[in-house]
Amino acid sequence: MPAAYDVVGIGNAIVDVIAAADEAFLAAEGLVKGAMTLIDAERAARLYDRMGPARESSGGSAGNTMAGLAALGGTGAYIGKVRDDLLGRVFRHDITAAGVHFATPPATDGPDTARCLVLVTADGQRTMATYLGACVELGPEDVDAALVGAARITYLEGYLFDPPRAKQAFRTAAAAAHAAGRQVALSLSDPFCVERHRESFRELVEREIDILFANEAEICSLYRTASFAEAAEAVRGRVAIAALTRSAEGSVIVAGGETHRVAARPVPRVVDTTGAGDLYAAGFLYGLTRGRPLPVCGALGSLCAAEIIGHVGARPEASLRDLAAVAGLA
Amino acid sequence: MPAAYDVVGIGNAIVDVIAAADEAFLAAEGLVKGAMTLIDAERAARLYDRMGPARESSGGSAGNTMAGLAALGGTGAYIGKVRDDLLGRVFRHDITAAGVHFATPPATDGPDTARCLVLVTADGQRTMATYLGACVELGPEDVDAALVGAARITYLEGYLFDPPRAKQAFRTAAAAAHAAGRQVALSLSDPFCVERHRESFRELVEREIDILFANEAEICSLYRTASFAEAAEAVRGRVAIAALTRSAEGSVIVAGGETHRVAARPVPRVVDTTGAGDLYAAGFLYGLTRGRPLPVCGALGSLCAAEIIGHVGARPEASLRDLAAVAGLA
Repeated sequence: MPAAYDVVGIGNAIVDVIAAADEAFLAAEGLVKGAMTLIDAERAARLYDRMGPARESSGGSAGNTMAGLAALGGTGAYIGKVRDDLLGRVFRHDITAAGVHFATPPATDGPDTARCLVLVTADGQRTMATYLGACVELGPEDVDAALVGAARITYLEGYLFDPPRAKQAFRTAAAAAHAAGRQVALSLSDPFCVERHRESFRELVEREIDILFANEAEICSLYRTASFAEAAEAVRGRVAIAALTRSAEGSVIVAGGETHRVAARPVPRVVDTTGAGDLYAAGFLYGLTRGRPLPVCGALGSLCAAEIIGHVGARPEASLRDLAAVAGLA
Repeated sequence: MPAAYDVVGIGNAIVDVIAAADEAFLAAEGLVKGAMTLIDAERAARLYDRMGPARESSGGSAGNTMAGLAALGGTGAYIGKVRDDLLGRVFRHDITAAGVHFATPPATDGPDTARCLVLVTADGQRTMATYLGACVELGPEDVDAALVGAARITYLEGYLFDPPRAKQAFRTAAAAAHAAGRQVALSLSDPFCVERHRESFRELVEREIDILFANEAEICSLYRTASFAEAAEAVRGRVAIAALTRSAEGSVIVAGGETHRVAARPVPRVVDTTGAGDLYAAGFLYGLTRGRPLPVCGALGSLCAAEIIGHVGARPEASLRDLAAVAGLA
């Protein structure tokens, strides 16, 4: 059956609340710089009170990836759970207006729409504190098997392993994709997320995942290796394609016996790294679903990551399709 | 009595919803490019549905000015009306976290917190559609005469003339300021706002205003002159100081027999002009309340306006205090 969508993304549907902060503030609040910490509603309210003036912008790892894919001209759908509240309407507006199909019904009671307090330090690094809210309501019943079967690739964010029912939704989606003869991609999301779910992730990678996205800290955490090189060899053969990102050092793509090194794209100034991995995945998946060679997929990933780190926020502001055309990658 | 605050700002308390748009979209929606159009809740919902992915950020003309004043190191307070809803809490958080005193009680029923749909075209110009929401609830009872009396300057945005009770609050505040021996500043806000309230504004400028902020289109509309030079002469003597902004051509300050021309500060790229006038006023008022010469006040205004037009959104992202220090204006 021809695919109606290039990619269906499944993730925690989150609105980002982004503010500048200094290192002392992160330390005082007990947040690990560069990482994502899960917080409850009460701590979210307290932290919000203390943090600086903010801007709100739709986020969520897989949501960012799908918005990026659409901005390149790809066709995408999204599955994720918001509440029927103001932030839920903001999330729905933004992903729909980006051109992504989003039909998951909102929760009509229970916790509010999720928010992620994103603290950006002067070096452009982001530190995140997430209140999962309505994301805990996502369950297998939200996975539309026909939709999953209609997408070339089902893309899952590792963060889905935090809310317990979402983890079930994740497994349901992977099974539905494979039953339809499609591929399943996973992003490991965060080294602490890998720490929390290492055994589940390893088993999943071995059995269900065709395409794996991870950064250096995540892949090293998954295989408990001391070096990136060891981790890259550990993953080789366990998935068809592993795209491993290394910030300014670019990415390494491991596929069977092949290894491709792709340069990062230089940016005048790193303003905010939020969404860099998500947008790398967007570019990569766009290339892959168009049958482009792996180094071109990686270069598309670098291009999209470079756009996102040049401004505040994790959704593209420039036309990624135009940028790709200018770079000869369209 | 020594002043506890440099400036108290009174305005429509609004959250901006900012998205990119093209000229065809503005035309299709019947919006006048560069201007502010008042819309009702229903039209706001319809326009939001049609516009692109957005980011939310606290705004409101006088709110932006007060945030800018605080970012320079000035002391400010704000009076404005939000609803006790999510956007109201966002507005309160942002202005408070910016260091501005804000104690106006929120409305507990009636319309939602106001929002302004800001459409930014590729040339950096912004076109605004405002749903006034809870702003229509601001009334004279919200004007704390002691607070107004405790500020060197009371700063009023012309947009307050749109909601009828806010106009009364405006007059109450001006009277309280003068009764306490303080000065009153007014920004004309928008040429169409001047058009709607020309006679009231003229009378007010003549009788109550010490410091007037206006851009070229606004001052020409106020005095129905064909040229900027005529308008500048028309306002001379009617207020102690008129600070007249001319976009890339800088500003002209008219004070009694004096005329000062101040250059605009060059920016690498105009990204979004939202808040340019508001931040010019912030810099100018900061200088004025510190007794700086008028050309220095104007240069501080240019500095703050340049920061705001270099990024999306109308609240400062860089430290204005540091920028002023680097420019030798602190």
